[in-house]
Amino acid sequence: MRFVLASASPARLKTLRSAGVAPEVMVSGLDEDEITAPSPADLVQALAIAKAAAVATELSMADSGDVAGDVLVLGCDSLLEFRGEALGKPANAEEAVARWKQLRGRGGMLHTGHTLMLLRNSEIVDAKTKLASTEVRFGYPSDDEIDAYVATGEPLQVAGAFTIDGHGGWFVDRIIGDHHNVVGLSLPVLRTMLIELGLGIADLPAVST
Amino acid sequence: MRFVLASASPARLKTLRSAGVAPEVMVSGLDEDEITAPSPADLVQALAIAKAAAVATELSMADSGDVAGDVLVLGCDSLLEFRGEALGKPANAEEAVARWKQLRGRGGMLHTGHTLMLLRNSEIVDAKTKLASTEVRFGYPSDDEIDAYVATGEPLQVAGAFTIDGHGGWFVDRIIGDHHNVVGLSLPVLRTMLIELGLGIADLPAVST
Repeated sequence: MRFVLASASPARLKTLRSAGVAPEVMVSGLDEDEITAPSPADLVQALAIAKAAAVATELSMADSGDVAGDVLVLGCDSLLEFRGEALGKPANAEEAVARWKQLRGRGGMLHTGHTLMLLRNSEIVDAKTKLASTEVRFGYPSDDEIDAYVATGEPLQVAGAFTIDGHGGWFVDRIIGDHHNVVGLSLPVLRTMLIELGLGIADLPAVST
Repeated sequence: MRFVLASASPARLKTLRSAGVAPEVMVSGLDEDEITAPSPADLVQALAIAKAAAVATELSMADSGDVAGDVLVLGCDSLLEFRGEALGKPANAEEAVARWKQLRGRGGMLHTGHTLMLLRNSEIVDAKTKLASTEVRFGYPSDDEIDAYVATGEPLQVAGAFTIDGHGGWFVDRIIGDHHNVVGLSLPVLRTMLIELGLGIADLPAVST
């Protein structure tokens, strides 16, 4: 079974590999700004579907029809909902600093949309989409600590401008939910989708040891 | 400022290093079975104190008195409280499998005791001890999934026979609290102890980049 991760996120790839799974990576040329939805929770699901569908289409076009095997495509998208707003990646260091001055001492909800598509002979034969939401409670870093954190570059790469692993770990006091979901991919959600497709973790390509 | 981690745990070292801190590692020859306490939460704190004190004593003995600098020593100990019992590392693969058949679908509380001691001229001049407790809700792996997970060897190395990172991530549905605490070291707790000692993250030796 081929397994394709439709995401450029190194954190998602690392999560899968640490859990024993070696996906292929294909990044869709999707224009994310084209997609809108009534809420952050709806939006991450719409984007997860769009990313998976874009890569599934590319796979189908590349395939001349004589590839008989099954292919799983996983699309994911994450956003931090904070005071009703959806926060993606900060544009630059100044924005990351300004955001942290708002986030500190407060809480947000990290939403990740997950879409798992099953392709058979280049046709999408099944697809599941699931949302996972994890509540995040931020600590209260000082201005100096925020500057030092942003200077690491980590907050510039991620939705909501915070990392739960790495240097951001000092400033996330508490979460309620799946911590891998905060990184961008809930493993229990992926496992549930696999089971719903009649598959299991053991069907995914294993990291070679 | 020297910073000594009084623990052999690779997960604790990795947590600190990912957060930008490069500790020295010194493992005490402490006989943990000698130490008892009325509850798992009390026990991890007693063990954290004992580990830090044992390493502080070794440092003082090694020091002939002419080392003027400050040294911070961090001791940690973790246990999973499950149905009133304290679970440490499983003795072998069979025990890990048996435990998982009890844990699945249920929840436990992962306690980590943290002690931070400040040595000045070989004397302990200040010490803080703090407990962090994170609720963990387990998924329901099948018997085959449990066998495959235990075969990775991961559950044999850790308190409670589960890893939240790595292969165990599939089977931890939800936590309430700090996820680094589950790995064995709460960064927000360490930061609070530093601040209480009049110090900060920036006083710790940084990972060289």
